[in-house]
Amino acid sequence: MKVYFDNAATTPMDPAVFEAMRPYLLEYFGNPSSTHSHGREAKAAVEKSRKTIAKMVGAKASEIYFTSGATEADNLAIRSFIDKYNLEVVVSSPFEHPAVLNTIAHLESKGVIKSFQLNFDNKGNLDLGHLTNLLEEYGDKTLVSLMYANSEIGNITPVDKVAKLCKEHGAYFHTDAVQAVAHLPINVEELKVDALAASAHKFHGPKGVGFLYVNQNSKIPSFIKGGGQERSVRAGTENVASIVGMAKALEIACENLDSDMAKVRELKSYMKDQLIKAIPEIAFNGESGDLDNSLCTVLNASLPANKQSGMLLFTLDLAGISASGGSACSSGALQGSHVLTALNADSTRPSVRFSFSKLNTMEEVDFVVAKLKEVYSA
Amino acid sequence: MKVYFDNAATTPMDPAVFEAMRPYLLEYFGNPSSTHSHGREAKAAVEKSRKTIAKMVGAKASEIYFTSGATEADNLAIRSFIDKYNLEVVVSSPFEHPAVLNTIAHLESKGVIKSFQLNFDNKGNLDLGHLTNLLEEYGDKTLVSLMYANSEIGNITPVDKVAKLCKEHGAYFHTDAVQAVAHLPINVEELKVDALAASAHKFHGPKGVGFLYVNQNSKIPSFIKGGGQERSVRAGTENVASIVGMAKALEIACENLDSDMAKVRELKSYMKDQLIKAIPEIAFNGESGDLDNSLCTVLNASLPANKQSGMLLFTLDLAGISASGGSACSSGALQGSHVLTALNADSTRPSVRFSFSKLNTMEEVDFVVAKLKEVYSA
Repeated sequence: MKVYFDNAATTPMDPAVFEAMRPYLLEYFGNPSSTHSHGREAKAAVEKSRKTIAKMVGAKASEIYFTSGATEADNLAIRSFIDKYNLEVVVSSPFEHPAVLNTIAHLESKGVIKSFQLNFDNKGNLDLGHLTNLLEEYGDKTLVSLMYANSEIGNITPVDKVAKLCKEHGAYFHTDAVQAVAHLPINVEELKVDALAASAHKFHGPKGVGFLYVNQNSKIPSFIKGGGQERSVRAGTENVASIVGMAKALEIACENLDSDMAKVRELKSYMKDQLIKAIPEIAFNGESGDLDNSLCTVLNASLPANKQSGMLLFTLDLAGISASGGSACSSGALQGSHVLTALNADSTRPSVRFSFSKLNTMEEVDFVVAKLKEVYSA
Repeated sequence: MKVYFDNAATTPMDPAVFEAMRPYLLEYFGNPSSTHSHGREAKAAVEKSRKTIAKMVGAKASEIYFTSGATEADNLAIRSFIDKYNLEVVVSSPFEHPAVLNTIAHLESKGVIKSFQLNFDNKGNLDLGHLTNLLEEYGDKTLVSLMYANSEIGNITPVDKVAKLCKEHGAYFHTDAVQAVAHLPINVEELKVDALAASAHKFHGPKGVGFLYVNQNSKIPSFIKGGGQERSVRAGTENVASIVGMAKALEIACENLDSDMAKVRELKSYMKDQLIKAIPEIAFNGESGDLDNSLCTVLNASLPANKQSGMLLFTLDLAGISASGGSACSSGALQGSHVLTALNADSTRPSVRFSFSKLNTMEEVDFVVAKLKEVYSA
């Protein structure tokens, strides 16, 4: 049995997404910027996809910009808001994705901005009082960048409250929503965020494509310079087939959001219960053990140390089980997890992130729990 | 009959490329940064593709960085060389792609660099004496960015001479080789360029993927900030399937380069002759009419004005013929061509760029020439 419990790193592509992409890889190959019939076919597909994606997140089509993924979208959002509004301060947290943390660190090293990271409790919940204080001090010179939901510990940021605080102080709010889009119901208009980034391969779409929502009030400059594509916000020939695939994947996810997520939640709940039964000394990092207060896709287990546990991920891998120690983007187990380090997690205990999709089964959970039980009874 | 003569804008994907991509879209979906078996399968495919591409252009695998396309690769090259070597001057030409021109303009507007554009003759040939003078003045504080071959007028830059001049003066040389890779034999080691950008969709590969060659002596910083992918030069989950597709497409192109290009050259030669017979007042922009001194893929015709010629591209489009007025990246016919404007081409005469691939036929040439003859005999 092969078990894939690393869906926060990437997800298998839905065959329906592949079928949606196929004609745009083969027959309709035109460049959307070309004015002839080959170009218009491609352009029409890109604009139809933009409408679909906008509808799924409660945006206007003109507020969606296609990128090569969420990393580029995060870079674009952070740099372009700072550039456009001459912002001087960026507020984030130690739990952000490297795309956010390293963009901020780079701009700070160049003297462009000063950055702050919010305080948090031992479960990784952010201190909104601290945010309020910073917003009172820096007001409309501030960009806040906080991820919607954490890829490692599953914590969900109260983005509605953050957005309200930002609005009250004239600050701008960008959220990396990579783990939230297609997993939580999202309506950007109601949320009142200024920018929101997502990536198709986290919801059964293709790699190499993502989007940035930018509120229509902000006409941002480009990050990648060049041709006039994406209304001069993102240069480069549009990745037509992947854009079509992303729209299809998001449409499927949103149409089945309630039932799919109920199923995943049941799976996580079952796995949590079985793990506690099998290994009573287990604990869960961040809020991931709290079913009502975390992503149903992520369960981050802190396991007791024993003589075999140092090689735990390797042992699981040998047994055909793919799980991770941290996010793939920080090279996984090799470097350790910056999120768990920030949370001051006990580094003598191995942590394993199990992350689920609608394609996983109870049988897979049984298989993984049995394997873990074996490690801990050896 | 539908005729696609706009291969400099984008090319149809080779079905063999699609087949090479398929397993990496479906079965082998892992994130290459994951350390488990799903991740390793993806990582192996990325690294195998890197080796293939390196071999095809005479580079080492460690000198190839994958990007979302040539626009991003140009941005990365220009910014990272300036950043790494504290360069103060960029030399280019008015014929460069917007990815180069707008990156330079942006950096100049921010006060980061001062830029110069080379002088040229009425065929668009660059003045290497001017380049020599600039290099003598600014030496090792200079980045030269000149495209290998022009997408609109087919001119081929003497990159070997430019590279030699740059080396003699300690300057750095980046070339946008989008129209040259897979169309001309290229060996970066012999050429002695510092950086070279290419895009898969110009040689029957997928859109949304490209690469930057960077000489091993230059360990450049990243442009898109984030995770440690691409040895920390390009953050973001690797677009595995498209990288595999690009390698396959380049391998096919390079293996058949001589025979394919001989065929395309014959096609261009035939079209040129037939056009001169049909419309004796025809001329050719840049060097594109000189078979021995231009890309065999590009023929840019300057046609006489008559009462129907104002709508020429539209007329061709209605007849099922896709050709272009300029590059797709500058929105084609709508804005006019910055290359032809720089060349001071007679704007009362319509210019049409016909660009070919190995998939085009003599019958298609006959069809297009007949249609043009009809316009000019009406």
